[in-house]
Amino acid sequence: MTKANSTIVIPVLLLGCGGVGRQLLHHIVSCRDLHSKRGLLLRVVGVCDSRSLLLVNDVISKGFEDAFLTEICRIKSSSTSSLSALLDRGHCQFFHDAEVTAKVLEVAGMLGRSTGLSVVDCSASSETMGILKQVIDLGCCVILANKKPLTCEIEDYDKLISNFRRIRFESTVGAGLPVIASVTRVVTSGDPIHRMVGSLSGTLGYVMSEVEDGKLLSEVVLAAKSLGYTEPDPRDDLSGMDVARKALILARLIGWRISMDDIQVESLYPEELGPNSMSTEDFIRTGLSSLDIDLQERVHAASSRGKVLRYVCIIEGSKCQVGLQELPKDSSLGRLRGSDNVVELYSRCYKNSPLVIQGAGAGNDTTAAGVLADIIDVQDLFQ
Amino acid sequence: MTKANSTIVIPVLLLGCGGVGRQLLHHIVSCRDLHSKRGLLLRVVGVCDSRSLLLVNDVISKGFEDAFLTEICRIKSSSTSSLSALLDRGHCQFFHDAEVTAKVLEVAGMLGRSTGLSVVDCSASSETMGILKQVIDLGCCVILANKKPLTCEIEDYDKLISNFRRIRFESTVGAGLPVIASVTRVVTSGDPIHRMVGSLSGTLGYVMSEVEDGKLLSEVVLAAKSLGYTEPDPRDDLSGMDVARKALILARLIGWRISMDDIQVESLYPEELGPNSMSTEDFIRTGLSSLDIDLQERVHAASSRGKVLRYVCIIEGSKCQVGLQELPKDSSLGRLRGSDNVVELYSRCYKNSPLVIQGAGAGNDTTAAGVLADIIDVQDLFQ
Repeated sequence: MTKANSTIVIPVLLLGCGGVGRQLLHHIVSCRDLHSKRGLLLRVVGVCDSRSLLLVNDVISKGFEDAFLTEICRIKSSSTSSLSALLDRGHCQFFHDAEVTAKVLEVAGMLGRSTGLSVVDCSASSETMGILKQVIDLGCCVILANKKPLTCEIEDYDKLISNFRRIRFESTVGAGLPVIASVTRVVTSGDPIHRMVGSLSGTLGYVMSEVEDGKLLSEVVLAAKSLGYTEPDPRDDLSGMDVARKALILARLIGWRISMDDIQVESLYPEELGPNSMSTEDFIRTGLSSLDIDLQERVHAASSRGKVLRYVCIIEGSKCQVGLQELPKDSSLGRLRGSDNVVELYSRCYKNSPLVIQGAGAGNDTTAAGVLADIIDVQDLFQ
Repeated sequence: MTKANSTIVIPVLLLGCGGVGRQLLHHIVSCRDLHSKRGLLLRVVGVCDSRSLLLVNDVISKGFEDAFLTEICRIKSSSTSSLSALLDRGHCQFFHDAEVTAKVLEVAGMLGRSTGLSVVDCSASSETMGILKQVIDLGCCVILANKKPLTCEIEDYDKLISNFRRIRFESTVGAGLPVIASVTRVVTSGDPIHRMVGSLSGTLGYVMSEVEDGKLLSEVVLAAKSLGYTEPDPRDDLSGMDVARKALILARLIGWRISMDDIQVESLYPEELGPNSMSTEDFIRTGLSSLDIDLQERVHAASSRGKVLRYVCIIEGSKCQVGLQELPKDSSLGRLRGSDNVVELYSRCYKNSPLVIQGAGAGNDTTAAGVLADIIDVQDLFQ
């Protein structure tokens, strides 16, 4: 980042043009005035989708114009369109397949140490890891909405966070909710966190509160699916793996050296109803409803003990668990309704009564807002 | 701050040796290992109480040793002891009364621009403003636990926050709870906050939940006072002025250009029972109980409407109000019990369901932890 007339210019290179990436570009454009008042200018120098890279001609001093960024969003909102469709607008270069990584690293080398470059990963791919590790060595900052690079092998994770001040990943847990920022603050102030409990899936939160109200699991999941609240294959939500990834990110954040294999994950469906045994259609048509009675009984059993059933992660002692838990009705987690996320932190300062952070924990708008807050936050490094 | 063997050294000058200031010194000492692992070294170069300044001999390269910092805490925990008692330990200089400000500014001038200096105000004084404005001009960072400098005239406030990246004040609202950091993140991500509601006084939160349980106001206040939960004169809590100061800090943080005079503050006692008309003793003996019936009736009236009464700040539209409000029982604020603080933020991303931050919002331990997290946060500027 460079100062010009006391404006701090932050070059940004975006990996991933899905919903979050496009929303980020929209936010960058709509925040121009706000950021300008704070002496900030975000200069988007390049945008990657899964196969190609669109790069501004003059990487050293120019960024895409706002109309062009809006056009990128328009083009990429159609799943069949390629970034190459924008080449005829001029002022940009286009790279494809094998050329992309080399070009990204060239840009990172040019900008990283001299002016700083924020490489922002809004993809959902595990294949960005190679690029991310290298751009860190080139002096760039890394901002992640993508959980995969943080849930990889511990050696790769260590490399990613080797300079903790140059990486931010708020939107990987609870979307834009300030969970990572808050945990980081508590930990660096010497107040060790000894217990974290969280409801980190909007979908599973919604499902469990509806089932508590007497509806059948299959009924709730199908309704949620028709509203677009679940993944195309609802087992991607019901397996708990997405929650497990978030739990791993939180556990590593407080210093635990664990991997995905160390997490006990309770899936809401048995293996014989899994993707290896049954198609999505069959699961929805026959498998799903076979889970109804069992879950209903567990909800009733919890209720008879004055508790409620929630799908949560618990990080405590030496155990990181993800699954159904009976929790007190009058706790933040017990009271949770609908799709809000909640995280409770217990530490020396928050011992009897936890620090609670609650709110919408999904959606492209809030996820991209969290990414943008991270980009602004990390720019202090370069003022 | 300077790098030595890739360690970032953060010089700190502390104003105020009350409970929070002393706890901060304790935290700095006990976090040595933690910070060292993160490549940070906090070097305390000077400590001020209300009348004097103890300064390390070699300001450019040395800080007080940990044993000495602990000794400062020990000495200052007795209200009659002066920092001068430590002079015979050597390695330090002592300045008194009129000399103090000039010396602080001299140190700020030496360290501010060259290596950075965090001037940390843990006093409760409105008289630090002069120093704070000047050290900012000298390139220092300012960290506040003291609310007074942020609730002053708007011109002075503008000066203080003229470089927003060099000032932090998390612990002025909700102690160490990440309220300011979260509001800042939401605002800078272009998600404008249109409503904030908060229960920001642990004392009044406790009082209102006990009164709701059927106890009398006078009974609850006297019990709280005997436990040390209230100010020596409980009217300092019951007036709502402390909550009003926090409300002003939040309103200014989201860009409102208002002053204390613009805030509607409901005091829980009438003027004829105020400090100008009645001594603390008389208020406690006779005045306090005269408030019981009226409050009890208001609590009942709220309850008959299915609501609960809470002492909150509401920042919305063009109004900043502090006082009793009837709130839904099943909201975060309605459910609040005991002395926890809660803040609800409503924005575009948190529209139907607010972003909620809840937890212990008072106490020297968590307040000082918030200050320390601020010092670490601001150091990114100098790495």
